[in-house]
Amino acid sequence: MANCVLCEDEGGIVIWSGDDCRVVQVVDPDLPGLCRVIWNRHVAEMTELSYSEREIFMTIVFAVEEAIRHVMQPTKINLASLGNQVPHLHWHIIPRYEDDPFFPESIWSQRKRGEKNTLGIARQQLALKLPQIIRETIANLH
Amino acid sequence: MANCVLCEDEGGIVIWSGDDCRVVQVVDPDLPGLCRVIWNRHVAEMTELSYSEREIFMTIVFAVEEAIRHVMQPTKINLASLGNQVPHLHWHIIPRYEDDPFFPESIWSQRKRGEKNTLGIARQQLALKLPQIIRETIANLH
Repeated sequence: MANCVLCEDEGGIVIWSGDDCRVVQVVDPDLPGLCRVIWNRHVAEMTELSYSEREIFMTIVFAVEEAIRHVMQPTKINLASLGNQVPHLHWHIIPRYEDDPFFPESIWSQRKRGEKNTLGIARQQLALKLPQIIRETIANLH
Repeated sequence: MANCVLCEDEGGIVIWSGDDCRVVQVVDPDLPGLCRVIWNRHVAEMTELSYSEREIFMTIVFAVEEAIRHVMQPTKINLASLGNQVPHLHWHIIPRYEDDPFFPESIWSQRKRGEKNTLGIARQQLALKLPQIIRETIANLH
């Protein structure tokens, strides 16, 4: 679709790509390990997909969650499909930590604390392992 | 679990209750039609559930989305499972409108506009129809 950033661009660094959707990693110093799963076709809502498409999509989302939990050891995983600004289905899979800039609020809430700390840097290092672990986790689904 | 509000309380007005999860409607003047699907057992992450439990859970989430879209005709649906403050699995299913207090940001973002408008009141009226339509939508799954 014209003027849709997720139709025109990949939406991040593609670390896995399938027929229906792709997994991208997003480099955000505040949120190391943040990944998105993006449906390839331009669709706005989960209930516009068929039942089998929903299942394919969520299976990949949960595989990414599993890999992120394994690699990043977060306090909590946040999952969200909002799309108010980009109504092209995409899931955020977000590892959260008690000392991240927004915890315990959402990552879209007002920042609660400032600078990235040394733990943040260590987590950026950990996040480098994610592409391989995510690909392995998805490969093991089949 | 002790000190978990979703173990101790229902978490809203229960409009459908199953063996594994329940659907509650939340009365929030800013967000008419907001519903949550809450897993009955105290579990923090989706990937702590079995594959079949995840499917049961998401099937109910999407049934609620379908009913909300049908009744509330929102601009966009937002889905989120965060749990930073209450790490007991619960999904928010949120109908969003271009003139709601937070659009196009998340409902956890800073408020962008103030008073509830007459459209908000009309949507509160619509939301009264949700319990029956959600129950019917779930009943039709089987």
